[in-house]
Amino acid sequence: MMKAQSNLPVDGARLWADLMALAEITEPGKPYTRRSFSALFLEGRAWLTRRFEEAGLTVRLDAGGNLIGRLEGSDPSAGTIMMGSHSDTVPSGGRFDGIAGVLTALEALRSLRESGKVLKHAVEVVDFLAEEPSEHGLSCIGSRAMAGALAPEMLDYRDGVGERLGDAIDRVGGKVANLEQALRQDVAAFFELHIEQGIVLESRGIDLGIVTAIVGIARVEIRFEGRADHAGTTPMDLRRDAGAAAARTIAFAADRAKELAAAGRGHFVATAGVVELAPNASNVVPGQARIVFDIRGEDQALVHEFMAELDEATAAIAEAGGVARNAWNILSDAKPTACDPRLRELLTQSARDLGFSTLSMASGAGHDAAFVARFAPSAMVFVPCRDGRSHAPEEWAEPDAIAAGAAAIYEAVLRFDAGAEQTQRDREN
Amino acid sequence: MMKAQSNLPVDGARLWADLMALAEITEPGKPYTRRSFSALFLEGRAWLTRRFEEAGLTVRLDAGGNLIGRLEGSDPSAGTIMMGSHSDTVPSGGRFDGIAGVLTALEALRSLRESGKVLKHAVEVVDFLAEEPSEHGLSCIGSRAMAGALAPEMLDYRDGVGERLGDAIDRVGGKVANLEQALRQDVAAFFELHIEQGIVLESRGIDLGIVTAIVGIARVEIRFEGRADHAGTTPMDLRRDAGAAAARTIAFAADRAKELAAAGRGHFVATAGVVELAPNASNVVPGQARIVFDIRGEDQALVHEFMAELDEATAAIAEAGGVARNAWNILSDAKPTACDPRLRELLTQSARDLGFSTLSMASGAGHDAAFVARFAPSAMVFVPCRDGRSHAPEEWAEPDAIAAGAAAIYEAVLRFDAGAEQTQRDREN
Repeated sequence: MMKAQSNLPVDGARLWADLMALAEITEPGKPYTRRSFSALFLEGRAWLTRRFEEAGLTVRLDAGGNLIGRLEGSDPSAGTIMMGSHSDTVPSGGRFDGIAGVLTALEALRSLRESGKVLKHAVEVVDFLAEEPSEHGLSCIGSRAMAGALAPEMLDYRDGVGERLGDAIDRVGGKVANLEQALRQDVAAFFELHIEQGIVLESRGIDLGIVTAIVGIARVEIRFEGRADHAGTTPMDLRRDAGAAAARTIAFAADRAKELAAAGRGHFVATAGVVELAPNASNVVPGQARIVFDIRGEDQALVHEFMAELDEATAAIAEAGGVARNAWNILSDAKPTACDPRLRELLTQSARDLGFSTLSMASGAGHDAAFVARFAPSAMVFVPCRDGRSHAPEEWAEPDAIAAGAAAIYEAVLRFDAGAEQTQRDREN
Repeated sequence: MMKAQSNLPVDGARLWADLMALAEITEPGKPYTRRSFSALFLEGRAWLTRRFEEAGLTVRLDAGGNLIGRLEGSDPSAGTIMMGSHSDTVPSGGRFDGIAGVLTALEALRSLRESGKVLKHAVEVVDFLAEEPSEHGLSCIGSRAMAGALAPEMLDYRDGVGERLGDAIDRVGGKVANLEQALRQDVAAFFELHIEQGIVLESRGIDLGIVTAIVGIARVEIRFEGRADHAGTTPMDLRRDAGAAAARTIAFAADRAKELAAAGRGHFVATAGVVELAPNASNVVPGQARIVFDIRGEDQALVHEFMAELDEATAAIAEAGGVARNAWNILSDAKPTACDPRLRELLTQSARDLGFSTLSMASGAGHDAAFVARFAPSAMVFVPCRDGRSHAPEEWAEPDAIAAGAAAIYEAVLRFDAGAEQTQRDREN
């Protein structure tokens, strides 16, 4: 039920051209790579700055290194409607995550200005600094700064060549000495478009996802310590095999997570993405094993129940295998973030009025919106992406799908500016 | 029932002093490391050459890079009794594997010459080149050369800095252009002393192990190909998790190998020592997994039965997990090597007559003796090592244990030279 693109209030072709142009600013041999703090990242931002200026926006960098284009509103007391996402990528990532959100915001602002409409609210497009884990090992750096969640010790994190994160932020135009200037009290609403990075919308043939919540993410590191014996001479019944204990742990977790995901308590996933053995030699019984689990859920209680089960199971596996579980480290345990109900409703209604089907769904991935939600009502629109592929060169979203999302956000911004009364009238018509 | 050392026909203290002196030729910050083809390895060999010459031996390097010290016999037609092992180590290895075997051979020869006895056979001590896997990825290079088992393509293997194995052999004094000159038709018997590298002798309080067979070693590489999806957004029931398939495989193999090891069909072990995931990132479902299994047994049929079960199990695990098992590579599959029954009997009788307890046992580790057995009757003596530790700095064998093994080999050499009739007479007395 996708509506004809020519009737949309945004220019889908212009948005698509921007996307393809910015995506091409990549490491040539390793598409699509534009790592935060790199020379290419700055080249991408220079391109964005020109586009922001061409759209008639006032451009600035805040103290947290966020690139912001702003269109003033008619009522200085109304506050700011913010839109945006990020322009950095993972290594060998895709063309859409997260510039689709930045350029959608730009297109919405451009269309708004061209329409001649003047909103009460100021409207901003933000390219948040370093949403993907940077070489310093931290993600969502810019949105953290805006939320006051960039702790002083984080500024001392160093990347592979020893540069402090604080120095890196200053190098790209931030000002960590005045980090409190990045804090925002004026934001009345925040909208972020992002590709789904999953296969739910595509498999169900739905145009747009309206995000209910961004999952809580817990990371748990488990280490087993056995004994690195000779693989040939050590009888099976005398081994202390840390690798076997890790294998039993991963098999248990995969089975149990599948059961819990089907329990009707919202989106739930658990992944053993990092597994490392030492000495990792074919002729030595593994003496050490390390697993990092990534556990996500809409329902933090369910995440904690799974962690408790994993704790118990790994202790039992270690004992049965004659190894020590010498680390159970909860590396992080972030709460789920609920999206703002009023903004969700505005987005849903706007999308439907434009002729698009919608689905309320959780985001299994983290986003800048989770940090923005700490200081402002926030909401997200997901667009389908092919085969759910993301963080990979084959990442793909259809031009029409992105235009649909951009139109829904444009419409929601207008309705938000017009106020709740207006929204109600639209619904009744 | 260890006999007083002073009554032994070899000088245990002199042998121990040699061991401690050669062991100290190690990378200083990484004891005990003397990697084949390294400058330290050549320094160790220069030290050995001096010791061989001081013992009155004629020293040469053969075409395969083996260092050989020789004492001629009275009957040029009698052939050669060879003894030896290797002087290279794994990285961060121990002090005994395998210089205990080289220096035991030297001590036996030295004691023989000092005793004034003249044997019919020539007697040699050999330091085989590169028994441990070299930086080119090949083990038992010198004994392979002697057995005609160093295939031309192996000479093209390259190490981490790109040096061809053939060039490396020449660099340390071999002559790969004339490799056929390393072949030996004159060897009447071969004896090798080695630390057990396991805990059987120590745990049973037995002085010496007489090796029945050197296990066959099979290596199997298994690769699973799934899909590297986003760990947050991909529902549990839509994953193609290569890491989970690997985990189930390792757990299956550990359980099944334990059962087969208890089946009464000789020494049997299976180890998943190498496990690698890609991309190995906490927020990505593992798209690829690689396992290398090391499978060893005295009974090759049992090794093959296990491999067939593993083949079937991994195919089923892959299918159930929605992943492809895209590699099942048998990297190697070496037959077990039986030790020569006559030499085993000579060693057993010699050890017992010297007052030492013995145990017939399989070697779970590979040794140069397995290649020498291709062209000459071969046998091995194991000495206990503390906690079974090997390939590690804490590797340790008692001076008395090594002297006992050296004495047993010395005595077996004399009896072998005297001929089968003599052996028979000894047994009847």
